[in-house]
Amino acid sequence: MFDLLKSELTRRTILHKAGFGLIALSTFGAVGTIFKPTRTLAQAGPAPAKEPLPPEKKLGWAVVGLGKFATQQIIPSFAECKRSKLVALVSSDRTKAKRYAQQYGVNPKNIYNYQNYDSIRDNPEVDVIYVILPNGLHAEYSIRGAQAGKHIMCEKPMANTVEECQAMINAAKKSDRKLMIAYRSQYEPYNLTAIWIAQSGKLGKLKAIASDHGRNLDLKDPADRWRANKKLAGGGSLYDIGIYSLQAARYITGEEPQEISAMMYSTPGDPRFREVEENVNFVLRFPSGVLANCTSSYGYSDTKRIQVFGSDATLELDPATDYYQHRLTIKRKNGNEEQNIEEKNQFALEIDHLSESIMQNKQPKTPGEEGLQDVRLMQLIYEAARTGKTIKV
Amino acid sequence: MFDLLKSELTRRTILHKAGFGLIALSTFGAVGTIFKPTRTLAQAGPAPAKEPLPPEKKLGWAVVGLGKFATQQIIPSFAECKRSKLVALVSSDRTKAKRYAQQYGVNPKNIYNYQNYDSIRDNPEVDVIYVILPNGLHAEYSIRGAQAGKHIMCEKPMANTVEECQAMINAAKKSDRKLMIAYRSQYEPYNLTAIWIAQSGKLGKLKAIASDHGRNLDLKDPADRWRANKKLAGGGSLYDIGIYSLQAARYITGEEPQEISAMMYSTPGDPRFREVEENVNFVLRFPSGVLANCTSSYGYSDTKRIQVFGSDATLELDPATDYYQHRLTIKRKNGNEEQNIEEKNQFALEIDHLSESIMQNKQPKTPGEEGLQDVRLMQLIYEAARTGKTIKV
Repeated sequence: MFDLLKSELTRRTILHKAGFGLIALSTFGAVGTIFKPTRTLAQAGPAPAKEPLPPEKKLGWAVVGLGKFATQQIIPSFAECKRSKLVALVSSDRTKAKRYAQQYGVNPKNIYNYQNYDSIRDNPEVDVIYVILPNGLHAEYSIRGAQAGKHIMCEKPMANTVEECQAMINAAKKSDRKLMIAYRSQYEPYNLTAIWIAQSGKLGKLKAIASDHGRNLDLKDPADRWRANKKLAGGGSLYDIGIYSLQAARYITGEEPQEISAMMYSTPGDPRFREVEENVNFVLRFPSGVLANCTSSYGYSDTKRIQVFGSDATLELDPATDYYQHRLTIKRKNGNEEQNIEEKNQFALEIDHLSESIMQNKQPKTPGEEGLQDVRLMQLIYEAARTGKTIKV
Repeated sequence: MFDLLKSELTRRTILHKAGFGLIALSTFGAVGTIFKPTRTLAQAGPAPAKEPLPPEKKLGWAVVGLGKFATQQIIPSFAECKRSKLVALVSSDRTKAKRYAQQYGVNPKNIYNYQNYDSIRDNPEVDVIYVILPNGLHAEYSIRGAQAGKHIMCEKPMANTVEECQAMINAAKKSDRKLMIAYRSQYEPYNLTAIWIAQSGKLGKLKAIASDHGRNLDLKDPADRWRANKKLAGGGSLYDIGIYSLQAARYITGEEPQEISAMMYSTPGDPRFREVEENVNFVLRFPSGVLANCTSSYGYSDTKRIQVFGSDATLELDPATDYYQHRLTIKRKNGNEEQNIEEKNQFALEIDHLSESIMQNKQPKTPGEEGLQDVRLMQLIYEAARTGKTIKV
């Protein structure tokens, strides 16, 4: 796999998406083989053992927002990072912040709130700010962070509007800081393998993609409540999880869609959908001819699935974009073949990717422009659904 | 299951599609339980043993067209029919017809060709004619068959155009004969169970459906060659296999679509797609709010899949519409549960269904009107793709 990724042929196939492959390769090179495909995928030997990096080689990270995702997924993942360490917390809840600071060894002097947030500029321990706030606050806290001279990691979706995304890109550029959007699936071994299989020709010529992402929005869960608020969330299921279906279609093909059609539906009277949409089904046409059928729902039970239809075989990733426990199957006429790949902490991988990009002064694989493109496409999906017309991108 | 199907609640839920449930129930009653759901589905006891019917209770069938599907699937299935027997063959190839007549015990005097086909009216042994010709010939041979005083089973798609379908319905009505379209999946135990599960509320409220049907059209195979000819095939992959995705969305919801959007793609220069289309992706909106994403392809490897997304669980039927070896899985948050259902010969079931409908003078479950509706919808799918507009049905 490693050898194959490095081969010129594969490089040409995979790397035509700006910034993707070269950074990915350097990541593999520096951190080690981040995924271990089965022998059926590649005959490459084990990656050579790497010396652990000295601790001073770790960049200092501040996490902004101590919600469920930040506290249950991101903060614990720093323990598995090789180039990144948690050094600061930003929260309106000082008691909560102190508890996490103690638990994860963060110096209490490095606890900030939203009032004194800008003073983080004076803290040399903080190199990177990771914004994990409701979508409607991403722009403000990313821009203020960049203006404070820090590199920025921002959760997806990047922001509510294209204009906000552009302002974030401009602010990072002006401060000469990196800006990366936390598209974890683009750092996750199963998804990387699926991309490689799809683009290597192993399925034959790609013909169609189907991707479905859904879950039940739960207003009883504080982590979900803000998502029913248009101003905070920017959009409904599409902004939250449909974006994974959209991403899948884009990273599996390595192409940008040319046309979009869509339909939407929200259950009348359901209090969850007063401001944001429940379901969006959309179809994307790619330049190679691939048509992608995507669904997004806040009303159906947990689904995270990607299916790639090639002329010779079908690839199924289900679950595709979970935190762990992915499953990748290649279906051929003569039977199904399951791919066993070593699971890795995708959060640690994406966090370290930004640290490395900063250290090596390289564009991260999923920069602000990647986030802006999704917000632009999601706005066009809404427009296609609203107008009942196929939109040319 | 049996009890549940008979309950008023389920009757109301399932039977709102005209002609569906009552006939289905009478089929179950007469032929016996045609599928045996696992205990997790129903706690009903075994169906009471039935006396075999006397042979004179079998209607005589003529098969028109001795292609691959007729000779490999349909003709051998008569051995498993309880109400139907093969008594005549219609073919342009007398040698071939004689060989099959000998193999299946058909009297050689009951071999017809396309010139003397109409004289079948004088053969009292023939009650039903099963038209298994290229789509473009369905109308002619069904109408001539009805005019010869015979009941008609016609393969799907019913015909190339809505006008042809209407003429077939009119001809059958005028001759007071039954006309049924061979929608085998509506007689197949796994699909019937999926319909029952979806409509019984076991998945919660239905939210979305995804159905994908694809295969590689093979011009080297004589059984496929005519399908690249627009006049004989009526359409491309949509008419041949996309119709299964369309059917799935309709019979799983038990509703008719209100809106359709679509995109098409055919590989430029591919000799298979000079006259007919390769891929169609379409989205259907149903009155209940369900949005269905469907794909149809003559370019990707064998796929026959139905997925039903409910608020509580997801149902996956994959393969969904094969001849045998279906697989039905219910996916919930706490794990997947595979449903083991006894496979049955769906061809024998559908053939017997028409024989019973004739004997009991009842409308078959999938009459000409069902075939016409699909042809009408497929024409609208093409129109949606051509115009780039969401079409109101």
